[in-house]
Amino acid sequence: MGDPAGIGPEIIVQALSDPEIRALGKFIVYGINELLTYEADRAELNCYWRRDQHDNINRNYPNNVAVADYDEIGWNPKIKGPSKLGGQASLRFIEDAIDDAVDGKIDAIVTAPICKESWAMAGSTFSGHTELLASRTYSKRHAMMFVGGPFKVVLATIHEALFELRHIFNIGKVFTPIDLAHTALKDFFGIENPKIGVAALNPHAGENKRFGDEEQRIIEPAIVLAREHGIDVQGPFPADTLFHQALDGRFDIIVAMYHDQGLIPIKMLAFDKAVNVTIGLPIIRTSVDHGTAFDIAGQGIANPSSLKEAIKVAALMASKRHK
Amino acid sequence: MGDPAGIGPEIIVQALSDPEIRALGKFIVYGINELLTYEADRAELNCYWRRDQHDNINRNYPNNVAVADYDEIGWNPKIKGPSKLGGQASLRFIEDAIDDAVDGKIDAIVTAPICKESWAMAGSTFSGHTELLASRTYSKRHAMMFVGGPFKVVLATIHEALFELRHIFNIGKVFTPIDLAHTALKDFFGIENPKIGVAALNPHAGENKRFGDEEQRIIEPAIVLAREHGIDVQGPFPADTLFHQALDGRFDIIVAMYHDQGLIPIKMLAFDKAVNVTIGLPIIRTSVDHGTAFDIAGQGIANPSSLKEAIKVAALMASKRHK
Repeated sequence: MGDPAGIGPEIIVQALSDPEIRALGKFIVYGINELLTYEADRAELNCYWRRDQHDNINRNYPNNVAVADYDEIGWNPKIKGPSKLGGQASLRFIEDAIDDAVDGKIDAIVTAPICKESWAMAGSTFSGHTELLASRTYSKRHAMMFVGGPFKVVLATIHEALFELRHIFNIGKVFTPIDLAHTALKDFFGIENPKIGVAALNPHAGENKRFGDEEQRIIEPAIVLAREHGIDVQGPFPADTLFHQALDGRFDIIVAMYHDQGLIPIKMLAFDKAVNVTIGLPIIRTSVDHGTAFDIAGQGIANPSSLKEAIKVAALMASKRHK
Repeated sequence: MGDPAGIGPEIIVQALSDPEIRALGKFIVYGINELLTYEADRAELNCYWRRDQHDNINRNYPNNVAVADYDEIGWNPKIKGPSKLGGQASLRFIEDAIDDAVDGKIDAIVTAPICKESWAMAGSTFSGHTELLASRTYSKRHAMMFVGGPFKVVLATIHEALFELRHIFNIGKVFTPIDLAHTALKDFFGIENPKIGVAALNPHAGENKRFGDEEQRIIEPAIVLAREHGIDVQGPFPADTLFHQALDGRFDIIVAMYHDQGLIPIKMLAFDKAVNVTIGLPIIRTSVDHGTAFDIAGQGIANPSSLKEAIKVAALMASKRHK
């Protein structure tokens, strides 16, 4: 559910009210049942799910949906915005979901947005779901991948100031997403020999070191290393032509060197449909691509389409998973 | 014509053989007539133009095309690749075209690709057509704009190593393209009140200085300055959402902070149709978006579509020009 004060409850009720989504699997909502019934009431929907105590879930799944309820948290519906209770609640939801995923009780986790400030108020030092997931599953290396449109994208670096990037940009930063993307596409997307294209860092790929030599110093060695691991990877290509050329499907995934380089094309091609997938984990985890949207939460106007897409990709990955 | 050893001659012959292109205006080709007739022969086209000595052009324009011939240069068709003679020739073509444009004898210049190495061999210190045009027209400020697709793009910085950008990124670098774009869209595209969107530099526009403060230190002051000049400009917006949102036409032009940020979306939307326009000049100048392609020159396989688009934009600008 993510933060109970965010738009999580309403987009969950909306997304799972769609029979096409419910047909994709059996769902457990880790969250506050009262909020879900409230949202269903306002949307004039019947409660299509079964509520159980979170520690005693009946797996009959009427209409394919069970709610693992944490009513003992004593959620206060008047809370708007960041709160310690919201942090405590959303931490419990994800911790329990991770346990169930690691134990094989569930096949995939789809996360609604949490609030970093709430987590900090609850005493957590994790900056988000991803870092918590990585820690709990002992995944030292992980990366952010986007699925949607004619090609996937994985990021070598994420939330870094552009002018600070040079301090952390190294061969490992480029090798890791290549390696993790290769494994993820094989293990979770049924692609036996993933074709990977790597974007250059500099305009025109530096034009033979005329403007920048990171292509030769950092990106090419990472590609050589990946090839030595048997990975089908090519590049670095000038980013402006690479993303255009990838439109024809010649690469399964593009490795972008920094956030906007990868997100500009993905959002242009699949704005509402781009799903954030955390790779490098032993479990499947997809996420909505928006925040808690506290400003509009509880008005019933939040758009569930990103959550629906995240559910679709999680279901696809679970079905393609290499057994 | 650009460098005679490049693909300029063949794409000119091809582009101007199209009656739709010739209907857009009257054309003078500053170049080597012998190369044009050779390309026409190979393409089994009749010579549809009139040849004159470059210093005595008859302006009857049969079929709307005259060739200003520089046969005294003594071009050697065996030259492949960079050469001093190629540099001397292409410098004379552009110098004379600039003189004619400044004198009002021609309304616009469309440039085929030159070779920087050839220019250096010919003793020129200019790195390309743009720098020469700026010098000859006393244009201290100029910028590269791309036309094609649902929005135009102008670049704040161009051929810079990404990790060196921080040394030159300042308020003027952001203000200049805003100011020049505003003027160019008014004066050459008939847009009375151009709407300008400015991209942020950092991911999520720095997310309140969490990763980078150039939005506050540099981009916002440039925008304030531009507004004080009466320009309708908004931003900085996170680049990944801005380019998506601009698809609906809410901005006439987007100011990109660096090369790939602007070129990735433009090439995805209009790969072969994106035309490079130099703004800040008192004259109209458009350009093909490719190089001399020495490796395929003279085989008749070069694609004239970029030149055709550059001609179309030049003709459009001449027709919309504020008199």
